[in-house]
Amino acid sequence: MKQSDDGLYMPSFQLNQVIRSASVGKVVASANPAFEVGDIVSGFYQVSEYAIVPGGGLRKIDTSVAKPSDYLGLLGMPALTAWSGFTIVGEPNPGDEVFVSAAAGSVGMLVGQLAKIKGCRVVGSAGSDQKVKLLKEEFGFDDAFNYKSETDWDAALARYFPRGIDIYFDNVGGRMLEAVLNNINMKARIPLCGMISQYNQEWKQRFGVRNLLNLVGKCVKMEGFMCGQYLHRMGEFLEEMTGYIKEGKLKYKEDVKEGLDSFLEAFNSMFSGDNLGKPVIYLGPPQ
Amino acid sequence: MKQSDDGLYMPSFQLNQVIRSASVGKVVASANPAFEVGDIVSGFYQVSEYAIVPGGGLRKIDTSVAKPSDYLGLLGMPALTAWSGFTIVGEPNPGDEVFVSAAAGSVGMLVGQLAKIKGCRVVGSAGSDQKVKLLKEEFGFDDAFNYKSETDWDAALARYFPRGIDIYFDNVGGRMLEAVLNNINMKARIPLCGMISQYNQEWKQRFGVRNLLNLVGKCVKMEGFMCGQYLHRMGEFLEEMTGYIKEGKLKYKEDVKEGLDSFLEAFNSMFSGDNLGKPVIYLGPPQ
Repeated sequence: MKQSDDGLYMPSFQLNQVIRSASVGKVVASANPAFEVGDIVSGFYQVSEYAIVPGGGLRKIDTSVAKPSDYLGLLGMPALTAWSGFTIVGEPNPGDEVFVSAAAGSVGMLVGQLAKIKGCRVVGSAGSDQKVKLLKEEFGFDDAFNYKSETDWDAALARYFPRGIDIYFDNVGGRMLEAVLNNINMKARIPLCGMISQYNQEWKQRFGVRNLLNLVGKCVKMEGFMCGQYLHRMGEFLEEMTGYIKEGKLKYKEDVKEGLDSFLEAFNSMFSGDNLGKPVIYLGPPQ
Repeated sequence: MKQSDDGLYMPSFQLNQVIRSASVGKVVASANPAFEVGDIVSGFYQVSEYAIVPGGGLRKIDTSVAKPSDYLGLLGMPALTAWSGFTIVGEPNPGDEVFVSAAAGSVGMLVGQLAKIKGCRVVGSAGSDQKVKLLKEEFGFDDAFNYKSETDWDAALARYFPRGIDIYFDNVGGRMLEAVLNNINMKARIPLCGMISQYNQEWKQRFGVRNLLNLVGKCVKMEGFMCGQYLHRMGEFLEEMTGYIKEGKLKYKEDVKEGLDSFLEAFNSMFSGDNLGKPVIYLGPPQ
């Protein structure tokens, strides 16, 4: 993965450059014998109605298991992120107390469902009552809360986790991470997936976490990861996840917009929290 | 290990209570068939010339390998801490770039020597020029610096680690941890041994580390540990360390004081940095 200097895992967008994104598409012309017209493919390429993409950057997808856009979410990068971060970095045990922030996001909603599948108790935080309802009623979270309605996150976590937190799947960083560290259990694991509260500032302006000493006294592991580290386990990942899909154990929610002009709104919704589910944009003919 | 609520791994001293410490002593009377008068033992018990200690809290030590006080340092808790933190949590590879803070301390001086034994390049920080000299000339560190003489730790680490840092053995926390995270390599490991810069404040007054996002972008593992987690590997530890001692590969330095009245000075020296080596107090007859 490309690495920028400010701790982000993706280079910043540049003015006057084409924006790239995880995408699925249909081959309409091919100069590569590995791909035929009509193939459905996924890759990380430019956001546009038509794109010329080197074959090495594309993968054919199996639409008998899931619909094409599922390869952006339910079986795509967010899912590999949820699966690798939760099961490999998080090392869940049955009975573990699991907290997920940004739980209604494209990764979080899968982490919660994986936690239930692994026999854990899971609570999620999200930024609207509608998302909280979704977590509890659609995705089977044991509980969930709207972080915008809670004035004291330390106290909220103490209330939702009377037995403390064993795994914190961190999507937000900052003050929520600090609140978690005040409610953390011995030998807890904290997979660091992202810190969306911290992206759009210069590092010296970011929130300083004051209670890292709790990591020492409680022997906690906090580990950053990216799904790109686990590409070699893609086979295992797809087998496990498609198994759950066939058993009806995994649900997913997309927030679908149409047309190239909706990109900015869809992108910004991840920061404002206005999205409900994984933002997906349909380009080309209406579905 | 007992766990206090403020993230410390030892309960705070209480007024009007006897202070306890890692100790070695000679048995002068025994009501336990497992111990005979004259046995040399180690344990964690009260700081006094004579102490009554339950047999379960004591371990006989082998003075043919090392002198009694070595079981407080070179083969004691600091050594198990250095060994388990560096080799198990730190996962060193030959060629790794290793940074140790409080490197002239009872744990740090062993971490640096273990790093050299494992084929790493190691740089230490310490709080006086005398300690820096000790690290380079006695303990074989590749380089060392006096953190009190450096005004910009980010820049200092960039200078000492042009190839970045693969393992940071953290004894101090706070601002130095932040500087390290600005110089950290992909997939680095940070065993959190202690955060001596942060102990004597209420948590909200502690230094807030602002660049934890680097843990995400660089897939870094940061893990708190205590040597008590690794007591089951004591046999392996003793075998490896006594091997190095016999081969002349490990040195140790004690800062010896005499008499009970020197306790306060010896203890405080760990915070002021006035000690040169592991603080040890001889009680009883002069050695």
